[in-house]
Amino acid sequence: MKPLRRAVRAFPVLVAALLVAGASVSCSSSSNKSSSTGSGDLDTIAKERGLTPEDMKHALQQFVPPGKHDDYVMFASGGHAGQVLAIGMPSMRILKEIAVFTPEPWQGFGYGADWGDKALKDGNPAIPAGTDLTWGDTHHPALSETNGDYDGRWLYINDRANGRVGFVDLKDFRTKQIVAVPNIQTSHGGMFITPNSDYVHVSSAFPEPWPPGSYADVKDYKEKFRGASAWLKIDPATGRMDLSQSFEIELPPYNQDLADAGKLVSDGWGFIGSFNTEMATGGNMEGGKSLEAGASLNNFDYLHAINWKKAAEVAKAAGKTEEMNGIKVIRLKTAIDEGLIYMIPEPKSPHGADVDPSGRYIVVGGKLDPHVTIFDFNKIQAAIGKKDYEGTDPFGIPILKFESVLAAQVEVGAGPLHTQFDGMGHGYTSMFLASAVAKFTLGDDVVKTGEKPFTLVDTIKVNYNIGHLAITEGDTEHPEPKYLVALNKWSIDRFLTVGPLHPQNFQLIDLKGGNGPMELIADMPIGMAEPHYTQIIKADKLKALDVYPADTDSITMAPSKDAIKFGDEKVVRNGSEVEIWMTAQRSHFTPDIIRVKQGDHVKLHITNIEQTKDATHGFAIADYNIQASLEPGEVTNFDFVADKPGSYDFYCTEFCSALHLEMAGWLLVEPAASAVAAPGG
Amino acid sequence: MKPLRRAVRAFPVLVAALLVAGASVSCSSSSNKSSSTGSGDLDTIAKERGLTPEDMKHALQQFVPPGKHDDYVMFASGGHAGQVLAIGMPSMRILKEIAVFTPEPWQGFGYGADWGDKALKDGNPAIPAGTDLTWGDTHHPALSETNGDYDGRWLYINDRANGRVGFVDLKDFRTKQIVAVPNIQTSHGGMFITPNSDYVHVSSAFPEPWPPGSYADVKDYKEKFRGASAWLKIDPATGRMDLSQSFEIELPPYNQDLADAGKLVSDGWGFIGSFNTEMATGGNMEGGKSLEAGASLNNFDYLHAINWKKAAEVAKAAGKTEEMNGIKVIRLKTAIDEGLIYMIPEPKSPHGADVDPSGRYIVVGGKLDPHVTIFDFNKIQAAIGKKDYEGTDPFGIPILKFESVLAAQVEVGAGPLHTQFDGMGHGYTSMFLASAVAKFTLGDDVVKTGEKPFTLVDTIKVNYNIGHLAITEGDTEHPEPKYLVALNKWSIDRFLTVGPLHPQNFQLIDLKGGNGPMELIADMPIGMAEPHYTQIIKADKLKALDVYPADTDSITMAPSKDAIKFGDEKVVRNGSEVEIWMTAQRSHFTPDIIRVKQGDHVKLHITNIEQTKDATHGFAIADYNIQASLEPGEVTNFDFVADKPGSYDFYCTEFCSALHLEMAGWLLVEPAASAVAAPGG
Repeated sequence: MKPLRRAVRAFPVLVAALLVAGASVSCSSSSNKSSSTGSGDLDTIAKERGLTPEDMKHALQQFVPPGKHDDYVMFASGGHAGQVLAIGMPSMRILKEIAVFTPEPWQGFGYGADWGDKALKDGNPAIPAGTDLTWGDTHHPALSETNGDYDGRWLYINDRANGRVGFVDLKDFRTKQIVAVPNIQTSHGGMFITPNSDYVHVSSAFPEPWPPGSYADVKDYKEKFRGASAWLKIDPATGRMDLSQSFEIELPPYNQDLADAGKLVSDGWGFIGSFNTEMATGGNMEGGKSLEAGASLNNFDYLHAINWKKAAEVAKAAGKTEEMNGIKVIRLKTAIDEGLIYMIPEPKSPHGADVDPSGRYIVVGGKLDPHVTIFDFNKIQAAIGKKDYEGTDPFGIPILKFESVLAAQVEVGAGPLHTQFDGMGHGYTSMFLASAVAKFTLGDDVVKTGEKPFTLVDTIKVNYNIGHLAITEGDTEHPEPKYLVALNKWSIDRFLTVGPLHPQNFQLIDLKGGNGPMELIADMPIGMAEPHYTQIIKADKLKALDVYPADTDSITMAPSKDAIKFGDEKVVRNGSEVEIWMTAQRSHFTPDIIRVKQGDHVKLHITNIEQTKDATHGFAIADYNIQASLEPGEVTNFDFVADKPGSYDFYCTEFCSALHLEMAGWLLVEPAASAVAAPGG
Repeated sequence: MKPLRRAVRAFPVLVAALLVAGASVSCSSSSNKSSSTGSGDLDTIAKERGLTPEDMKHALQQFVPPGKHDDYVMFASGGHAGQVLAIGMPSMRILKEIAVFTPEPWQGFGYGADWGDKALKDGNPAIPAGTDLTWGDTHHPALSETNGDYDGRWLYINDRANGRVGFVDLKDFRTKQIVAVPNIQTSHGGMFITPNSDYVHVSSAFPEPWPPGSYADVKDYKEKFRGASAWLKIDPATGRMDLSQSFEIELPPYNQDLADAGKLVSDGWGFIGSFNTEMATGGNMEGGKSLEAGASLNNFDYLHAINWKKAAEVAKAAGKTEEMNGIKVIRLKTAIDEGLIYMIPEPKSPHGADVDPSGRYIVVGGKLDPHVTIFDFNKIQAAIGKKDYEGTDPFGIPILKFESVLAAQVEVGAGPLHTQFDGMGHGYTSMFLASAVAKFTLGDDVVKTGEKPFTLVDTIKVNYNIGHLAITEGDTEHPEPKYLVALNKWSIDRFLTVGPLHPQNFQLIDLKGGNGPMELIADMPIGMAEPHYTQIIKADKLKALDVYPADTDSITMAPSKDAIKFGDEKVVRNGSEVEIWMTAQRSHFTPDIIRVKQGDHVKLHITNIEQTKDATHGFAIADYNIQASLEPGEVTNFDFVADKPGSYDFYCTEFCSALHLEMAGWLLVEPAASAVAAPGG
């Protein structure tokens, strides 16, 4: 214990250092003092903690030591939380929650900072008018691809609830654009990207009255309701979707469901599963039966096969499309006449429609059928070439003969939904009812393990009620047979009880290179979302920025016209408009007092002039519902009316330095003469 | 491969089973097929994955096997994300994100369901008028206590940005109440609960003009600005805060900071650190200096010691308080006259003010002082008894003599902030500048290890820039010396890069029962929040519901008057008001068609009639910005105007069964004659 007065005398030097340099950071790796360990120690720990030999092995399979990095990143939809989760694998640690459709203040998305407010506002649909959406139901992420493999540049995700698609730039993990897809009210699994990121596709889940924006009763369902398959053109430089270069194809009022892009031999085609070809509309208190019954009558629904490369040509041709709500639409009759769409019978109430890495096999999981059904693209092409149809659907779309295009069926168990592939010739199908994953072989042209084709080879129980599953690099032409994640919808007793709303359960399964039985390693609770689907990319493909270049506008990723250097800060008043160019650095804003009059229009530009990794600041104003995250190098713009009189604290919301608490200032809003606030008391 | 036709014939039976029973769930534990393992296997895995012997040990210390439960639950504030995270320990898996101040659609908080909408709306401050807040900056969680120990019933958390306190019922992990604390614009660390949950305390961070609601310039800071210490009475039956039984004490316009409740010998007292006793207000473009400099001039700030038990008596006495904006306020002069408040000099720009488990020692971390300063409550009492003052502060509050109340100072390192205790006589202090945790001994009346009192005994580096830290059961009278979590503000290079906004880093440290050196086990990224503080409770103290009793209204936790049984569903029209009593069960809503006219006022009551654990449904309407989570047994109420004409899909948002996709219906909003939507095309 040192004498106090000596300590006090040391203050001024320390304070001076802090004020000039900000907090210093030692980046040397942590040292801890425990001695090195042997297997005896391991057994002791295992005994203390009740770990079996199996548990010990799994611990080593999952653990990523402090400071070491994960091998893969899983991008999981956040379901009705409206975001995307980036999760490191195998540790299953959440690296980031990326806000997409739902405002999120930690990232400053939707709380006054320009980039998020713009994305959210632009993402409101034109129809119905006056729709202001503050949530979404993210379902199917689609990572950008080059030559059929993930390239780590961009991510797209659909909104099940409101028929929208969001675009996340993986340079900064920010949502840069939300597109309200015209003529699509809702979407579900009909989301994929083409192998060179020409288009991101989304199709409707429930049809809506056409022309969209009109009203119709469900009594007129077959006549008046229609779905759509939307092909949204991706700008190859920026990743943004461009509606002016996009097109749609009108679809029958079935429920279009999971979809996938053709690849290699089937490149240029897309495949969309469907259910409710019965066109049931419920009405269980109007003399009808619930949709679950009405939509489960037929033994076959229809896999939609769409020739999108040809459709893109048709969309460019004069007179072949109608402009509807801002997008070119190929009406269904034109699509049939031009040979753009065919139906393939698929048993039954299918969920998955998944193309294998070779592009030849399309696997369908009919959720009320204990088999997976495997179609052969070569046979599909031959059947189309020969016009080998069994007839047409009620809308005139040719139906290929089931037997003509079938490769095989494999009995897997109850409730097959979705299939992934390991690149070794195996498919892995989730089975909701069986709470299991089935592993089976495809055709002998792709099986690399010597196993018999089209045969069930392994099953593993999962906990519980699996929806989708995902394999490392699973939707590419080159999956890596390393890990499989089971996305289980129910967790029941697997975790501590945290109330009646239970987490979901992601289970990490070791694929052993595709050569051995599947092995469960770990459970991961998801207690902030209901993820529907994920894609998993090799970590080294991601090339995110760790700081923005100085003066970056994150909307354009170019220098901002409103960037300001330290010392050049200014406040310009023009009538009732007050424009402020402010800087932020450890540990102050300049200016730190903003004086306005009630009703003034405030335009505020803040440049975070730091270039140190992780030197994030935040900016919030009490009672004004404003909050932004200011990353190093970033320029953030705000535009608000100072409508509330009073003296308001503004402050840095991200703990930036030892004097972070002192990084604050005052918004002084002098009351208008007519509106002096009534004091309390 | 089975023949197709046979499979198809099996459908009707399977379908019938599904429709009646919903999805069945196998609750048997997962079996995997790998053989048992020995240490040879472990070494092979370690070699493949590059794990050192230390890493192997840490893996076993952290791993919780699939299906096994964690030992502790950490409740971490979510910072400017506005929520609370419940994290299992030692696995560091996020069990749930609990929405508090920010709307969150997965839980259905703030998207049309009554319970969340009400909490958010009631939480808007009265001053300034018209404030509609949709975010918060959660800082300091306070778990309810009985006899000085966490009891697992309730959780309170403050909003740094807007001066509010939220209440989470740990029966269902839902936010039930948000109180806009009158006369407090912002709060920071001044949050604690008294040892028998009589009061939850919060104090202001930045002062505001008094009387609150008035306007003042910061030029008149000392005269017109005031802080407050608020004592919010907790209803012992429900956990709700009751402003009518609460009181405040007016404080000088310093920045009140971290605070803690006395316990045992000091029970009845509260302690609040402060900084900026200089009363600096910045003004760096007005000829002044930034707050970080202006607020760092004095060698001592003041620890506020408040006799809350006596204050509670004074608040009840006639004529001792003023009613200000709905709460009784003890003005500062009264507080001084009644002997409710004393100042203790504390070096310097303190952050922490933490009471040890015995209640005798109060540890202050002056962030610009390399020591922790330890005060002795017995000496404080003696000094007050003798009126042994060195004078008064500028507002007349008696200042105790530093040397009279000091127990000791221990030099720990650069930037000490916050201290926790292990119940073995040690304090553990976070050091922001040093990026380290220091472990030191308290007085020999509490040291159980035979170590020398008031001595630094261990230091561990952390990565990087630690803010707070937390020990298992750390804020109670009986901490458990099991784990310490370092809440690091910067992660820099510790995780994969996910853009310029980096995660924070929670580090799990083994305390070895307080008897050995601290040992780092694992890093945990926090990529969705900036947690400020956490409390860690033994998991078996939590007694959350896993389903609601049938017909529960989650606001009252009693049966809802709007519960409905299956078969009794109804629609009642009364002029332009349409009231619907609906049921939800796997896999349909009844009714599944809602017919209204544009402009109708819709009152919808949905009873989830399931009682199966995890049988959650959701309810969302396309384009209507409505989303709720319907837990088993719950009755949820909605109240909205059908202002948008059209035919809208509504659907179950939580994957509930194999026929979940079919759990949907139609909201048919017939256009008003005057407002037929213009069709597109």
